[in-house]
Amino acid sequence: MTDSYITSIGTADATSISLLGRDLAADLMGQVSFGELAFWLVALRRPARGELRVFEAVLVALADHGFTPSAIAARLTLTGAPESVQGAMAAGLLGGGSRFLGVTEDCGRFLAAALAAHHGPPPADDAGFDAIADRAVRGQRAAGLLVPGLGHPLHKGGDPRTPVLLRIAKDAGTRGPHLRLFEAVGRVHPAILGRTLPLNGAGVCGAALADLGFEPDTLRGFALLARAAGLLGHLAEEMRRPAAPGIYAEADRAVRYAPPN
Amino acid sequence: MTDSYITSIGTADATSISLLGRDLAADLMGQVSFGELAFWLVALRRPARGELRVFEAVLVALADHGFTPSAIAARLTLTGAPESVQGAMAAGLLGGGSRFLGVTEDCGRFLAAALAAHHGPPPADDAGFDAIADRAVRGQRAAGLLVPGLGHPLHKGGDPRTPVLLRIAKDAGTRGPHLRLFEAVGRVHPAILGRTLPLNGAGVCGAALADLGFEPDTLRGFALLARAAGLLGHLAEEMRRPAAPGIYAEADRAVRYAPPN
Amino acid sequence: MTDSYITSIGTADATSISLLGRDLAADLMGQVSFGELAFWLVALRRPARGELRVFEAVLVALADHGFTPSAIAARLTLTGAPESVQGAMAAGLLGGGSRFLGVTEDCGRFLAAALAAHHGPPPADDAGFDAIADRAVRGQRAAGLLVPGLGHPLHKGGDPRTPVLLRIAKDAGTRGPHLRLFEAVGRVHPAILGRTLPLNGAGVCGAALADLGFEPDTLRGFALLARAAGLLGHLAEEMRRPAAPGIYAEADRAVRYAPPN
Amino acid sequence: MTDSYITSIGTADATSISLLGRDLAADLMGQVSFGELAFWLVALRRPARGELRVFEAVLVALADHGFTPSAIAARLTLTGAPESVQGAMAAGLLGGGSRFLGVTEDCGRFLAAALAAHHGPPPADDAGFDAIADRAVRGQRAAGLLVPGLGHPLHKGGDPRTPVLLRIAKDAGTRGPHLRLFEAVGRVHPAILGRTLPLNGAGVCGAALADLGFEPDTLRGFALLARAAGLLGHLAEEMRRPAAPGIYAEADRAVRYAPPN
Repeated sequence: MTDSYITSIGTADATSISLLGRDLAADLMGQVSFGELAFWLVALRRPARGELRVFEAVLVALADHGFTPSAIAARLTLTGAPESVQGAMAAGLLGGGSRFLGVTEDCGRFLAAALAAHHGPPPADDAGFDAIADRAVRGQRAAGLLVPGLGHPLHKGGDPRTPVLLRIAKDAGTRGPHLRLFEAVGRVHPAILGRTLPLNGAGVCGAALADLGFEPDTLRGFALLARAAGLLGHLAEEMRRPAAPGIYAEADRAVRYAPPN
Repeated sequence: MTDSYITSIGTADATSISLLGRDLAADLMGQVSFGELAFWLVALRRPARGELRVFEAVLVALADHGFTPSAIAARLTLTGAPESVQGAMAAGLLGGGSRFLGVTEDCGRFLAAALAAHHGPPPADDAGFDAIADRAVRGQRAAGLLVPGLGHPLHKGGDPRTPVLLRIAKDAGTRGPHLRLFEAVGRVHPAILGRTLPLNGAGVCGAALADLGFEPDTLRGFALLARAAGLLGHLAEEMRRPAAPGIYAEADRAVRYAPPN
Repeated sequence: MTDSYITSIGTADATSISLLGRDLAADLMGQVSFGELAFWLVALRRPARGELRVFEAVLVALADHGFTPSAIAARLTLTGAPESVQGAMAAGLLGGGSRFLGVTEDCGRFLAAALAAHHGPPPADDAGFDAIADRAVRGQRAAGLLVPGLGHPLHKGGDPRTPVLLRIAKDAGTRGPHLRLFEAVGRVHPAILGRTLPLNGAGVCGAALADLGFEPDTLRGFALLARAAGLLGHLAEEMRRPAAPGIYAEADRAVRYAPPN
Repeated sequence: MTDSYITSIGTADATSISLLGRDLAADLMGQVSFGELAFWLVALRRPARGELRVFEAVLVALADHGFTPSAIAARLTLTGAPESVQGAMAAGLLGGGSRFLGVTEDCGRFLAAALAAHHGPPPADDAGFDAIADRAVRGQRAAGLLVPGLGHPLHKGGDPRTPVLLRIAKDAGTRGPHLRLFEAVGRVHPAILGRTLPLNGAGVCGAALADLGFEPDTLRGFALLARAAGLLGHLAEEMRRPAAPGIYAEADRAVRYAPPN
């Protein structure tokens, strides 16, 4: 009567634990890095050596951004519920929505859609990618939308992560159509938008993950995983040297009360 | 007037991003694995090669346990809010409390407390560790408490992860007093409790992390980070082949309504 | 240097607590119901007696829907972290996204947009509302979208909450253009869609809240507040008589493992 | 094969919805307040009129406390994920752990334990309650623990909510042994602790709920429900007039970077 559900992730019996079709204890522990396992869990295939190098670089690039709203929310939550580290982590991740962590996903989706709208095989040269980028950027502009992956509030002259990830992907042999199109966006947008914006780190990570074969729907998840490590760092620091009570006191001090009417 | 908060994690200016005192783009991306960064973010020091090997093995060991309550909760949450992957991840992590993911932390804390209660330097031989373990296990028993890290609902004859992690730690040179005491618990408990229980995987991971120098308060966080990767796998699988609607339908079918009075 | 933030909700000094411009202890406790306070907190005005009656009926209507994915997720989360009721509540609320609790918001937004697209004052009679409904339903259809508030998986012949809330709103004098347009959707859609669907409870609640003056952006929040009470009931029941372990065991029993390749 | 789960909350069929053994549409909507339903969902019995008055006063008393860490965390989360109101609500509730919302539960638990330790029926007069309070306060002191419900960072001379809730409960006829013991704690503690502390609002709410028959395990849940309404107010205000970007900017401005070594 009960439908059965099929999983390819893990199972266990009295004497063994299987994960992804391998024996966890014999074949995975000590044999694969945590990053490799994360790739494998989502892709359901083991990454090649070059793919893993790019993937780990993406996770490293996205792990932390300093005192972001999400890091502050996690620290404040720990103040109220110090017994529940999982609650503080969850609160921090919940800020990873459309506005912050969403860029990685949005950029991957934007590039994938532009490539899908291009009939025929991916172009062979930069000029071909420039043509696709031109159409896509004009399309966003006509729709009154921003171009995902373009612009940064702080790194206005260039996001330092972008050229490094492009180089790593090129060295690793995983620079594919998404990254090439992303570079083309960088070349063509000034003429269309009338100003030059940096290709940001969240965007290049989305492009690099898409070139590793990940669907746009899974990209935000990797940004969240990376952020989980950053949040751990913030929470461990908060335990040693609390900042949240000061942030709370300062906000409480700065607030002004104006009765509704 | 405003107090300032000190952080050692990250900061950024217009042209560079610093993380842990290094240049993120130049010194970390492509140079360290994601696991290495996670270690560093909490410990505030770079792991040695052997330490990293043990640390990554712990994260791999803890990443997934199949269709656990936490994985099911994450999948059900995605069903209701498919646009919010962060909500589904958060819901899954919130089940990582005292009863499941808590074992890693509880075991590390139990071992650290037993070692702290021992006057003088750590013992030089197994007999010395057995004496500490004997006192600690008897203490738990007298207090009517379980011994953290002992017993498993499924792996009654032995958790396959335990000997593997012990071997990895020994090879890596990080088998210290916590792991040695944990092994001693395995030796002495049958005579005290009147039955032989397995040293479980969550427990050995707590002992191994404690030997890497991590405080008990930080251990649950690593279990959560590992679990975040497992949840990503479950959520990606749920997007491809949903199980949650069936689980919900089955629960709804099985429930019986009995008015309160 | 610090910007100040203005709040109209609450403030306190050594001897008094102000909430919404009133003295909490003297003017609110014992004088207003919890529902009345919730209305006031969002609207920043005290509801009239009839408005409150409709508002409380909406919260009652939306509080529970049995063993939903969100209630099951909350129960499963309590199993893993029984010490953290706030985590279980949060996990349950996180399932209140676009697919379930979103209907209330979506319906309010749909009706508000249709009314805004109508030039001139709201119609004086049913025929006028039918014309607006006709245009709006055809518009959704042409765009390949569902009509929010229309249809129910179980109550195919009519949702029992709908006529009751319509009557309460009429009696209370708060049946305004959103509810009248919602009724018109009920009248006109069969000719357009070729089948007759029920006006569902989540939809009529959205229409009723919109007629009370609430913006669409705030509607999901009320559905979450109502659901919070239902989740409390589920969690109290789970503490007395656990269902989650059985749901988990059944899912674990039904799952089949198929290695990725 | 499948165990069935018994629920007394709700169920539905094609034509009706049952909640707590009543017909939701016919018997509850428009007939009971939201507060009344929340009481009923947990207690599984309908409150008497006086009980409901006290219960609603408790929820009103606990709904908001201004710019608390939990309210700020909810606002910051909305900044990052404005599309996910449920995530912002969840983040706010996650701060409702042991340190803030826990007082209500801790106080109810403390009073219930003190009453349970008293042999024989509850005392008939204040002197009898003073004796129990004396023993209980001395016990906390000897164990190095604070007395739950005693003390307030701001209302040092007296929490304005306390006398009001005591009066409401007395008028309603629900002032029972927990509230009487709480008052006794107020009388006896100065002689034991050497200073006079106020009976705080969170504590008196816990005592009042315990006198309504609620178990300590359910008390934090009511504090969370009350807080959910306050969070809705904060989130609606944040949508109209954002404070979180300023709080974030200020924290980011105040933070100082000190590399780990």
